[in-house]
Amino acid sequence: MKVNGTPMRTIWESDNGPAVDIIDQTKLPFEFDTVRLETVSEAAHAIFDMLVRGAPLIGATAAYGMALAMKDDPSDDNLEHAYKVLYEARPTAVNLRWAIDEQTACLKPLKPNKRFEAAWQRAAEIADEDVAMCSSIGDHGKGLIEMAYEKAGKSRPVNILTHCNAGWLATVDWGTAIAPIYKAFEAGIPVHVWVDETRPRNQGASLTAWELGQHGIPHTVIVDNAGGHLMQHGKVDLCIVGTDRTTRTGDVCNKIGTYLKALAAHDNKVPFYVALPGPTIDWTLDDGFKIPIEERDSSEVTWMTGKDRNGVVRSVRIVSEGSKAGNPAFDVTPAHYVTKLITERGVCEASEQGLRSLYPEKPEAWI
Amino acid sequence: MKVNGTPMRTIWESDNGPAVDIIDQTKLPFEFDTVRLETVSEAAHAIFDMLVRGAPLIGATAAYGMALAMKDDPSDDNLEHAYKVLYEARPTAVNLRWAIDEQTACLKPLKPNKRFEAAWQRAAEIADEDVAMCSSIGDHGKGLIEMAYEKAGKSRPVNILTHCNAGWLATVDWGTAIAPIYKAFEAGIPVHVWVDETRPRNQGASLTAWELGQHGIPHTVIVDNAGGHLMQHGKVDLCIVGTDRTTRTGDVCNKIGTYLKALAAHDNKVPFYVALPGPTIDWTLDDGFKIPIEERDSSEVTWMTGKDRNGVVRSVRIVSEGSKAGNPAFDVTPAHYVTKLITERGVCEASEQGLRSLYPEKPEAWI
Repeated sequence: MKVNGTPMRTIWESDNGPAVDIIDQTKLPFEFDTVRLETVSEAAHAIFDMLVRGAPLIGATAAYGMALAMKDDPSDDNLEHAYKVLYEARPTAVNLRWAIDEQTACLKPLKPNKRFEAAWQRAAEIADEDVAMCSSIGDHGKGLIEMAYEKAGKSRPVNILTHCNAGWLATVDWGTAIAPIYKAFEAGIPVHVWVDETRPRNQGASLTAWELGQHGIPHTVIVDNAGGHLMQHGKVDLCIVGTDRTTRTGDVCNKIGTYLKALAAHDNKVPFYVALPGPTIDWTLDDGFKIPIEERDSSEVTWMTGKDRNGVVRSVRIVSEGSKAGNPAFDVTPAHYVTKLITERGVCEASEQGLRSLYPEKPEAWI
Repeated sequence: MKVNGTPMRTIWESDNGPAVDIIDQTKLPFEFDTVRLETVSEAAHAIFDMLVRGAPLIGATAAYGMALAMKDDPSDDNLEHAYKVLYEARPTAVNLRWAIDEQTACLKPLKPNKRFEAAWQRAAEIADEDVAMCSSIGDHGKGLIEMAYEKAGKSRPVNILTHCNAGWLATVDWGTAIAPIYKAFEAGIPVHVWVDETRPRNQGASLTAWELGQHGIPHTVIVDNAGGHLMQHGKVDLCIVGTDRTTRTGDVCNKIGTYLKALAAHDNKVPFYVALPGPTIDWTLDDGFKIPIEERDSSEVTWMTGKDRNGVVRSVRIVSEGSKAGNPAFDVTPAHYVTKLITERGVCEASEQGLRSLYPEKPEAWI
């Protein structure tokens, strides 16, 4: 999507030499800076230090990392070493694991002198596949925004609430939850986005607000407490959020606080949509409450980072000293509070039947 | 309640001379400082600049402000002037208006040379009445915490979630929502409080956490997004919140985000209690959605204040530059999501019938 008027991706091949450039997302929204990755170790650091974030973008970065490793030393030893270095940068990231497994399967059978080229090409494909998937989610979701626009008599912008950042910054391009918004905007449908600030890490106030602003999409940041009130007063036409993991029965695990918004949407008859790429469906799970929820460091709650009046980025403690903080990172929204799921293959009910209608190739039984 | 082991109120008569001391709440939780008020203009400033906050405490401060005005100049003119100065410090504060009306009615008929003494005595009564009312709310609410303790087989602390600050800092002593917790704690019932940080002004993370910590009550600060998840996992036995205004039908207007917690409590069968002094019931209203909701300055959302690593209190911008923010200050929780109301006269259903059973003297019909 656009940054300062220019179309960009979050990761792209450098003009000169085998390398990739990325946006350093740790500096957003206060500073826009790009970083060049020339080695597997730089790629691993970019993942570990969260210069790149979001499952699809981490996957693409890891795929390029494997390719960069093959540049100078395409030996079996180095292939294994690169796998290890990247895996350890984020052992819990499913897309990362998938991308490096994919590269290993593709490269292992090849002679070393063929590996760099093949890896580079496969990494480019992985990035392009992500873009295509997100674009397709956007096309399918756009229809739902169009429906809301028609329901409002095409008389005013469609008000859409989103939580956290499931925008293009979390993917290679388009995003998941925000993709339908970009598609609607490009189709000339007037939209306005309510952006939940998304405590404790503020991905809404910093990243979602930044990317919408750069693309020129009208939006208003609100505290996470405000969405229910806005829905009570008819100021939200629909909600769209992303998800980290969805069970085959349609339960949605996403950033903490998603569940509260789903409850408010349900109470006020506001459609609550969840956008997801097929690979984030966990076909082995039939109950979202079986998903273990990560408890993250309490300093994310007790400290806050921003830019002071002199333009200096600073961290400040905001919680009374001596008080401890809890920090569950995700919650689970039961399927019955989800109006529809939006995938790259279309829109379906949040249920096993709904998902199977779009992914009929998935086996019937799981142990 | 206690500060650093010593029992205190939020406002008290100074040792030497007609004056009152208050806690400067703008400096909490980073610094504990008291300020002496010797004139009506100092009292008005303390209200305007939010050194004192919370409806009951503002009322008591205004009552003492009227008394301080009578100290040097007990004339009719100065009585009117004092009224005006205090009224303008916070024109929307119902308790403030009530307190200065009360003082005016008491002082007007008196000869000027009797006014100071009478005003001082009435102010002390107003403060004591508030303490008695909050203490009584605490006694009634304690029973509900006791019930939860018994339900848990007296095997573990009772987990209580609260939103914003409805503690003793908002009153003269005890608080409203937190009063039952102090009473339970003093009765030896083990309690643990989940403190919503309460964006955008963070009264939970700063004030509630501070006062619970000073009194020695175990507590954990969480982001406003986390409560639903905790309730889904059985980690909350009951919720208690305060209210700015309750309709005679039991709809509750309180700090933004209260409604979302009530929805989660309802969805998870967690009792959701609202503590309120009788004077905050608006007998003229039969529908909470008729209450106009204040939209506050967006800088409360976009900027955050805290203490940096060097102990310096600083403000930082946390929202992407160029993005605007919305800031509705309150929301309305419909009565059917409120399990019970806790008042100084006892516990009742959140309904007109429930409230009338406790306040039978209120007239039947309102226009």
